[in-house]
Amino acid sequence: MDMTAELTKRTEQIENIIKKYLPEEEGYQKQVIEAMNYSFLAGGKRLRPMLMLETYRMFGGKSEVIEPFMAAIEMIHTYSLIHDDLPAMDNDEYRRGRKTTHIVYGEAMAILAGDGLLNFAYETALTALQTEQTPNVAKALLVLSQKAGIYGMVGGQTVDVETDQTQSVTRDQLDFIYKLKTSALIEASMLIGAILAGATKSEQKIIEEAASEIGLAFQIQDDILDVTGNQEVLGKPVGSDAKNEKATYVTYEGLKKAQEDVKRYSKHAVNLLESLVVKNEFLIHLVEYLIHREK
Amino acid sequence: MDMTAELTKRTEQIENIIKKYLPEEEGYQKQVIEAMNYSFLAGGKRLRPMLMLETYRMFGGKSEVIEPFMAAIEMIHTYSLIHDDLPAMDNDEYRRGRKTTHIVYGEAMAILAGDGLLNFAYETALTALQTEQTPNVAKALLVLSQKAGIYGMVGGQTVDVETDQTQSVTRDQLDFIYKLKTSALIEASMLIGAILAGATKSEQKIIEEAASEIGLAFQIQDDILDVTGNQEVLGKPVGSDAKNEKATYVTYEGLKKAQEDVKRYSKHAVNLLESLVVKNEFLIHLVEYLIHREK
Repeated sequence: MDMTAELTKRTEQIENIIKKYLPEEEGYQKQVIEAMNYSFLAGGKRLRPMLMLETYRMFGGKSEVIEPFMAAIEMIHTYSLIHDDLPAMDNDEYRRGRKTTHIVYGEAMAILAGDGLLNFAYETALTALQTEQTPNVAKALLVLSQKAGIYGMVGGQTVDVETDQTQSVTRDQLDFIYKLKTSALIEASMLIGAILAGATKSEQKIIEEAASEIGLAFQIQDDILDVTGNQEVLGKPVGSDAKNEKATYVTYEGLKKAQEDVKRYSKHAVNLLESLVVKNEFLIHLVEYLIHREK
Repeated sequence: MDMTAELTKRTEQIENIIKKYLPEEEGYQKQVIEAMNYSFLAGGKRLRPMLMLETYRMFGGKSEVIEPFMAAIEMIHTYSLIHDDLPAMDNDEYRRGRKTTHIVYGEAMAILAGDGLLNFAYETALTALQTEQTPNVAKALLVLSQKAGIYGMVGGQTVDVETDQTQSVTRDQLDFIYKLKTSALIEASMLIGAILAGATKSEQKIIEEAASEIGLAFQIQDDILDVTGNQEVLGKPVGSDAKNEKATYVTYEGLKKAQEDVKRYSKHAVNLLESLVVKNEFLIHLVEYLIHREK
């Protein structure tokens, strides 16, 4: 399988699905919608909706009910980036090679665009109840909200911000941050795919664990790329963690151990996926590909 | 009816209901939860959950399914205040006689507390699907999300921020801001109460219109109090609109016309409520009371 070509094709398919759910740029509130769409359309790997769709397919899912959830998870991811880039948070001026939202639209509008996107994620996901009012859809909505909140992504962000401010982090806190800040949304993505396709409870458990490992591997690879990556390929400055004296997996464990652990976590995730009765070859390739990514 | 005593009693009942849904202050992410609860517990009139509960009761609603929605609407209201007070927005240091969230917890934590509360509102409201998985609950969730977002409250905030920046606002924009920024959540409150209690489509329409008028009257009264109010009673500085050269209903129409219009809108809302077959005497008194409030 030519993964680069395959990924390009599939990313485009995902884009076509999730773009359908964006709001029209019209009305007096046009500016906030523009800011929301500017951030949402800045590109990116669309990893979360892709993992969601592929997990859904793996368990035999065939309906369009997955689509609003795919858009919603990407909206939640995007809002978190907008708020994360704000001056009071990471104060980043560039992301994916483009100016960040508050640089283009101002800080007030960036705060509102983030709020608007988070809320719109729920407006979008909730439309699934109009298509299928089933216990699975209800469960999927609950998972989405829980993994995005204070016991998921927002919780991870909080500890990340706090430990940055105190400039001290324990290994336990670091694990907590990675598990919540990054893994939580990956877990939501794959778990929602599994739930909506009717996977059993024990299958859901395996998927959640695999997703957690994928998230971990993904985040550590991110830290590695901040040390070894190419600025032009990444679309953002490298060395920012070191500049900000940010404690990462790499500063804790060293580059070599970090690289080994990315492979180890990915391998474990693949083993978990291969332990299932159902199969999705592309999903396995995708997980393996993430280890070697350069951006 | 001694409205002041009655309101105190009922506000306490509401507080007891909505407090049950707050997250425990524990775990590594404790700080963001503290910031969320600090803001949520700062007091306030609890007008939105009160209007929701009273509308629910009016249409004969008796189940506990209303409770997570009562908590959720107050969480959404609270998050909007936290973000609205931020330096990049209104830059307010006091609210309800207490320091605002970013003053106590810092700007980054205030942004995250707002995000956390907005998200937790959905985590909370979605639990209603576990109690009752009915089309009415699904509809109520959708209404909640739509009235809170870019076609509701966030949309109103956007135009408010924009017209503040350009220091020019048309009457049409001002109406748009009031309708979305304030009325939208009041509409959500009463409409959700009506929907969950099984009101008919035409009853829902009347409730939504009455709520819109109540919101309008409430917001204009807010502007009036900013001119005529007592700082100690209000718990925040008066004259802030004038200081910020903010265009309000009062600057547009003058104090006298504004005061008349509060009465007119409230009267219209009361007439709408009285046109229904069902009755709730306290709800009528509450709407009339809001005209005379001093904070």
